[in-house]
Amino acid sequence: MEYRLEHDTMGEVKVPADKYWGAQTERSRNNFKIGPEASMPKEIIHAFAYLKKAAALANCDLGVLSADKKDLIAKACDEILTGSLDDQFPLVIWQTGSGTQSNMNANEVIAYRAHVMNGGNLADEKKVLHPNDDVNKSQSSNDTFPTAMHIATYKQVVEITLPGLTLLRDTLSKKAAEFSTIVKTGRTHFMDATPLTLGQEFSGYAQQITNSIRAINNALEVVKELALGGTAVGTGLNTPKGYDVIVAKHIADLTGLPFITAPNKFEALAAHDAMVEMSGALKRAAVALMKIANDIRMLSSGPRCGIGEIIIPDNEPGSSIMPGKVNPTQPEALTMVCAQVMGNDVTVSIGGSNGHFELNVFKPVIASNVLQSARLIGDACVSFTNNCAAGILPNLPEIQKHLENSLMLVTALNPHIGYENAAKIAKKAHKENKTLREAAIELGLLTSEQFTEWVKPEEMVGSLK
Amino acid sequence: MEYRLEHDTMGEVKVPADKYWGAQTERSRNNFKIGPEASMPKEIIHAFAYLKKAAALANCDLGVLSADKKDLIAKACDEILTGSLDDQFPLVIWQTGSGTQSNMNANEVIAYRAHVMNGGNLADEKKVLHPNDDVNKSQSSNDTFPTAMHIATYKQVVEITLPGLTLLRDTLSKKAAEFSTIVKTGRTHFMDATPLTLGQEFSGYAQQITNSIRAINNALEVVKELALGGTAVGTGLNTPKGYDVIVAKHIADLTGLPFITAPNKFEALAAHDAMVEMSGALKRAAVALMKIANDIRMLSSGPRCGIGEIIIPDNEPGSSIMPGKVNPTQPEALTMVCAQVMGNDVTVSIGGSNGHFELNVFKPVIASNVLQSARLIGDACVSFTNNCAAGILPNLPEIQKHLENSLMLVTALNPHIGYENAAKIAKKAHKENKTLREAAIELGLLTSEQFTEWVKPEEMVGSLK
Amino acid sequence: MEYRLEHDTMGEVKVPADKYWGAQTERSRNNFKIGPEASMPKEIIHAFAYLKKAAALANCDLGVLSADKKDLIAKACDEILTGSLDDQFPLVIWQTGSGTQSNMNANEVIAYRAHVMNGGNLADEKKVLHPNDDVNKSQSSNDTFPTAMHIATYKQVVEITLPGLTLLRDTLSKKAAEFSTIVKTGRTHFMDATPLTLGQEFSGYAQQITNSIRAINNALEVVKELALGGTAVGTGLNTPKGYDVIVAKHIADLTGLPFITAPNKFEALAAHDAMVEMSGALKRAAVALMKIANDIRMLSSGPRCGIGEIIIPDNEPGSSIMPGKVNPTQPEALTMVCAQVMGNDVTVSIGGSNGHFELNVFKPVIASNVLQSARLIGDACVSFTNNCAAGILPNLPEIQKHLENSLMLVTALNPHIGYENAAKIAKKAHKENKTLREAAIELGLLTSEQFTEWVKPEEMVGSLK
Amino acid sequence: MEYRLEHDTMGEVKVPADKYWGAQTERSRNNFKIGPEASMPKEIIHAFAYLKKAAALANCDLGVLSADKKDLIAKACDEILTGSLDDQFPLVIWQTGSGTQSNMNANEVIAYRAHVMNGGNLADEKKVLHPNDDVNKSQSSNDTFPTAMHIATYKQVVEITLPGLTLLRDTLSKKAAEFSTIVKTGRTHFMDATPLTLGQEFSGYAQQITNSIRAINNALEVVKELALGGTAVGTGLNTPKGYDVIVAKHIADLTGLPFITAPNKFEALAAHDAMVEMSGALKRAAVALMKIANDIRMLSSGPRCGIGEIIIPDNEPGSSIMPGKVNPTQPEALTMVCAQVMGNDVTVSIGGSNGHFELNVFKPVIASNVLQSARLIGDACVSFTNNCAAGILPNLPEIQKHLENSLMLVTALNPHIGYENAAKIAKKAHKENKTLREAAIELGLLTSEQFTEWVKPEEMVGSLK
Repeated sequence: MEYRLEHDTMGEVKVPADKYWGAQTERSRNNFKIGPEASMPKEIIHAFAYLKKAAALANCDLGVLSADKKDLIAKACDEILTGSLDDQFPLVIWQTGSGTQSNMNANEVIAYRAHVMNGGNLADEKKVLHPNDDVNKSQSSNDTFPTAMHIATYKQVVEITLPGLTLLRDTLSKKAAEFSTIVKTGRTHFMDATPLTLGQEFSGYAQQITNSIRAINNALEVVKELALGGTAVGTGLNTPKGYDVIVAKHIADLTGLPFITAPNKFEALAAHDAMVEMSGALKRAAVALMKIANDIRMLSSGPRCGIGEIIIPDNEPGSSIMPGKVNPTQPEALTMVCAQVMGNDVTVSIGGSNGHFELNVFKPVIASNVLQSARLIGDACVSFTNNCAAGILPNLPEIQKHLENSLMLVTALNPHIGYENAAKIAKKAHKENKTLREAAIELGLLTSEQFTEWVKPEEMVGSLK
Repeated sequence: MEYRLEHDTMGEVKVPADKYWGAQTERSRNNFKIGPEASMPKEIIHAFAYLKKAAALANCDLGVLSADKKDLIAKACDEILTGSLDDQFPLVIWQTGSGTQSNMNANEVIAYRAHVMNGGNLADEKKVLHPNDDVNKSQSSNDTFPTAMHIATYKQVVEITLPGLTLLRDTLSKKAAEFSTIVKTGRTHFMDATPLTLGQEFSGYAQQITNSIRAINNALEVVKELALGGTAVGTGLNTPKGYDVIVAKHIADLTGLPFITAPNKFEALAAHDAMVEMSGALKRAAVALMKIANDIRMLSSGPRCGIGEIIIPDNEPGSSIMPGKVNPTQPEALTMVCAQVMGNDVTVSIGGSNGHFELNVFKPVIASNVLQSARLIGDACVSFTNNCAAGILPNLPEIQKHLENSLMLVTALNPHIGYENAAKIAKKAHKENKTLREAAIELGLLTSEQFTEWVKPEEMVGSLK
Repeated sequence: MEYRLEHDTMGEVKVPADKYWGAQTERSRNNFKIGPEASMPKEIIHAFAYLKKAAALANCDLGVLSADKKDLIAKACDEILTGSLDDQFPLVIWQTGSGTQSNMNANEVIAYRAHVMNGGNLADEKKVLHPNDDVNKSQSSNDTFPTAMHIATYKQVVEITLPGLTLLRDTLSKKAAEFSTIVKTGRTHFMDATPLTLGQEFSGYAQQITNSIRAINNALEVVKELALGGTAVGTGLNTPKGYDVIVAKHIADLTGLPFITAPNKFEALAAHDAMVEMSGALKRAAVALMKIANDIRMLSSGPRCGIGEIIIPDNEPGSSIMPGKVNPTQPEALTMVCAQVMGNDVTVSIGGSNGHFELNVFKPVIASNVLQSARLIGDACVSFTNNCAAGILPNLPEIQKHLENSLMLVTALNPHIGYENAAKIAKKAHKENKTLREAAIELGLLTSEQFTEWVKPEEMVGSLK
Repeated sequence: MEYRLEHDTMGEVKVPADKYWGAQTERSRNNFKIGPEASMPKEIIHAFAYLKKAAALANCDLGVLSADKKDLIAKACDEILTGSLDDQFPLVIWQTGSGTQSNMNANEVIAYRAHVMNGGNLADEKKVLHPNDDVNKSQSSNDTFPTAMHIATYKQVVEITLPGLTLLRDTLSKKAAEFSTIVKTGRTHFMDATPLTLGQEFSGYAQQITNSIRAINNALEVVKELALGGTAVGTGLNTPKGYDVIVAKHIADLTGLPFITAPNKFEALAAHDAMVEMSGALKRAAVALMKIANDIRMLSSGPRCGIGEIIIPDNEPGSSIMPGKVNPTQPEALTMVCAQVMGNDVTVSIGGSNGHFELNVFKPVIASNVLQSARLIGDACVSFTNNCAAGILPNLPEIQKHLENSLMLVTALNPHIGYENAAKIAKKAHKENKTLREAAIELGLLTSEQFTEWVKPEEMVGSLK
């Protein structure tokens, strides 16, 4: 491989000749061979492009950067956003906890790519932009990396997570309406209970997701706050007056998202509570989705030896050894995602709790886990919706069979004959393998006509929607 | 011990003669000898008293319970709320996951205590109230236990957690104001960084708690929703029309808290996402408090070989072997609480994710963990505030010594001589153990006068509050 | 309340006149009002009694404590072990993270109780033993508290956890043998699969517990190592030569357990990896028990609308509203315990990871969580065994019905007609609601005789035990 | 793109014409668009190659597969192991929880690649091997995927994790020896304490890792047990007699690792407790490494305003805004890895606890998390060792300054003048900012000569190694 020499404040470094990155990126690449290469999320890289461009615009607005340099920076940033420079970001998550070298990676690639776009050569000693003095002007890793975390997270959540959850919620609501008149046996403690409609069951799922969406939206209110302008320790050292507000405005304009400057930059650098809060909201969604997915797979269990009250789409052969087997693979993928998100939340919380003084140095691990959780939930909801939930059908014969058999219809008799007498009927029916009607009459507690009048499953589901 | 005979639908049970509980409580007491006795939180017991009284009021309003019975129930509930019947609730957390026997414990104690208050005798076969048909009227364990969870949690949070957090936040804000002119060295990566004021540092802590309070308040919005009225599976079977709204109104009136009926009872029985959300908010506060407490103990470290920039109150001898030692015991207690709350959140999430069909049967473990977290955070904040935070003083000589020594004051030179030249100064000073001024002059990069003019720590903290 | 004056190195403190504790305990009691009173586990208190007695014996052996003082200390310790002084230990978990005041609580109670046993009066200024110079001789909180943690944990595990697990394992093994000829349908992905015996299913559960026991025994190998002798920072300052080995020997003799001195005292004070390891082993058992308990409740689901292949004992009425309902309450209690243990493990790990320099100061929270986990698993296994597992019966008619219906018996045809042809049969039978035999013959893939010869469920379970 | 038609038991599927995979892989690829493509760990793919080859060898040994087919399978497997077919495995973690389609992906690629190696064409309708009937012979996804998990995990742990930990441990032991005579102040509660040597401090770290290695080795004892031979539900249906033992032997031979067949196949399919146990052991190592890395960064803090007792290598510029700043980046990367591993353990535990009946369907998420944890710990230990630990130097002037200043040297006086008098000296020195010697003499508690004789830091570290 051919190399060129780059330098930083520690000296010279050999860099692959055709790469836009410089000395600091190369040092980090060599010093942190931990896990797969280039694991720093692409969402973070692209967020850096937004913020570097916004910083250049703000610096130019405030008279500390020339219009020429601003344009050069903006142009390079735009190119990063196309994705065509993704291979210029070789660093891993497991680097310095401030993400300093990923900030420098962005500074270097922007400076050097701009130099080349401007007609220069990568081997030129002097380049048209300095990574620190120009591209990083009015910035520090300590405020850029958290800003990139928030930009990337907000975007991921509104572009992937919330649409996925909303799609699933709307599908479940539609199913709830479709199934609103299908009366079925309820189950509590996994045991037969009083009836409800299949639609009511699904309405509970939809409510769970509605609440999850609300919780995520609450967390977005803090994720929208940006650290940028705090620089090294939160004081805003080396920034022009008014910069923090203006740069946040530029980021909002560039992304079309409602970013604002954080009210307290010390908090914004030293803590990542906003990310912890978002992770918690995603975890809360995962808890809800785990319950829903488990219900779907259990309700569809069988086909002949399970509960079998719903039919889910057959998408692929289920077994390499059992011919004709079909499995609830979408619920399985979704529950695995939920387990991942629940564990990620612990990682994020541990990282969040370990900040010291003016800086939390678990930034990359926090960012990558929150971004993964946000992505997986969104993607898995879409997959689960399209390949499973949307195609759910009731298995009416099984539903009817279970409903008729359920001993818990006896509960309708409580107001008429009291809990203890009703229990006698249920117990006799169970023990002697009889119907409730038979047991009731044999016990002399009511007549067959009364039973017909009082025990109407379809009237046992009606007090609440 | 003397016994009397009680019965339930499964038969007769011997119950200690002087206890107000009945057959079902006694069965559970014998069947679940897991962990210490009577571990079901008292907050849950008291919440049951509110809801049983409210249910009696609503049942009476709606004409399904006589005024006499309503009054008897209310009177017994009031007595429970005084705490004088606490020893009548012997059950443990580790019982059925629906808390059914704790619901029955409440039903039995209310029915039998009312009977005695009404002049009856515990040994009477027939009592003035029936635990199921009267006290439990229009209810099921499946909607009462979650309602009790929400009542207890809401109360705990507004009576203990939020006041504790607010006290600490206000104290930290006061300190931030007091310390607003004390310039000190910042630290990032645990390493010397550019200066800020001690007040700014504390303002970050205050902001963290402000945000935590907001997150907890967001979660209260779902905790205020009550399942009561859903009965067995969420359909409201065996409740009179309008009952769910009225009973929630009575609970709100009795507690003075803004409870409302849950919009979807299926969700409210089958999922405890509201509790998961509250646990997540408490965990988020714990993450914040862990950071704050760690900073306080590290800033106060020493007295002679640590960082030592603040002085915290000496409350007790710190060592049984090292005479005169004083330790940051309040931060330690607080961080242990945080670790507990972070683990409790995992327990709650696992419990929350494991509901099936119409019921989540991890209710007691969810409730006890959320209540513990809420209590510990509130108590620990009060203890930490009163015994530590309120008494924090700056150690001005140490602060001044560190500030003067810090090589990172060099950052102020970036706009004047560029990042790379500034780095040369810092490196030379570090290597040759010199002051920045000496190194700068020796390198010929600026004059002593320029150094004096450009490097003013007190002006390095001013761009942001 | 009446008080007497006690003093420590910080001055005088008013202590309740009739209590054996002194100034330091009282300070901690007042300074840490966090959560319920006296929450420090009794197991830790009793472990202190063992170690204080052992230290006195070792100190006497090595000539640094008089035989008289040794006897006084031993006598007071023996009294603590009877439990009669439990109310002399009022401190909470949420104190200093080294447990210093609980060590001092033990020192004070032993010194003052010994004084009274020796004919003295609590109000005497000078007592026969000094809490620090005599009772705490050759010790520090920093080595006594971890030693107490290990003693308490080892005892709890061998007295409660392992017997509970072993009882359950043996019961499950017995059931496996009993059920060894009952052929039933298997279920994978919650869907019908090829057959196995009910005994084979239970043998898997037994194996899970056998492996859990082994993992716990592995962890005991490090829990048996004691920090005592390390004193303040691990160097053994102020201990006589040979003390660490001798004191461990005395503890082993007093408890009858194989304690030894830790090979590296620095590790033993600064880290609690042994406790983390034990917590991990208990968590691993919880993961296994969660699976087993879930299976039991799902297999027993019904009675008429579930899987219903086993019958578990009815122990209490299951519902306050649904008469005659019986629920799998023991599995529910067990799974709640598992959720708690899994969360406790996170607390312990967070605590374990946050030690600094020569001391981990999350000792009380680590100890209390591990002890709770160990106790809950043991107790819950006993409860689950006696009230559920031991009484499990097969529901033969349901088992037979499911077995006959299962389409996955078709798998037996793979070696004869290939996977794809077998799949055709299963799919046809499923779609047309026919038996496999009917579908096979209609497809012309085999004769009825061949079907009879090749599809024998009882021969499909035999290749492995 | 060009396609060819492939079919499975559900019908025809269009597959990219140049890919070796078939219908089932393609279905899964389309049905599970969750997260980045091809996320199934390569370690699992390669483990499949080992086991498919071993199965072919065993099948041939036992007379159920021809030698020709065996050779074809073996040849294709060998090619997979070279890595040259990695791009033929496009599936994601988030698929069916049994990993069925990844098993089929292996079956299809082996069958079709073998066909091409044998001179056939991918477009041929009939191929030389059938994915199910030949490549998957005597197997099921349900026993192959867990076997692949164990093979991949065992390899990862012995090839990456343990060498990394051992390298770090040996380096720390070497440092412990190097630093064995450097007496320094100890710190407990982050506060000054009695002295120890820097070597003793490092010996504690080494011991932590030694214990971690032992715990991981314990877990390997269960990871070495293979499920293969259990097929669909653990009974070994459709396997020839003796197959399970023989196939494990072949895997052991091919990998050079001590694999054996699992003693109970029902446990091996339905539970992944062995993986949970390994994850717990890795987490335990992470807890230890977190402590060590935190100590290193705190001990190296400064350079002028921290603790600064050790010097760690400067590897890269530490700040994009603060010139000349150097940060403890390797400890940061390591602690981020630890946070990830601790969260992964929760994911694995949740997955492990959620198996039902004969199968755990969280296999891919369990496998990917354990493999990531194993890899990250190993890699991070190597990085941390080579770029940090190996280059640690003592900062002797700071160490000496702290040692001389420490008030806790007073502890050496306890045996001479008692704890309370010693405390008076320390308190006076602290309050009046004097040396211990001065305070002692002023209090008249001892002479200067006695002080010199009794307070010798170098003798305060000697009782234990």
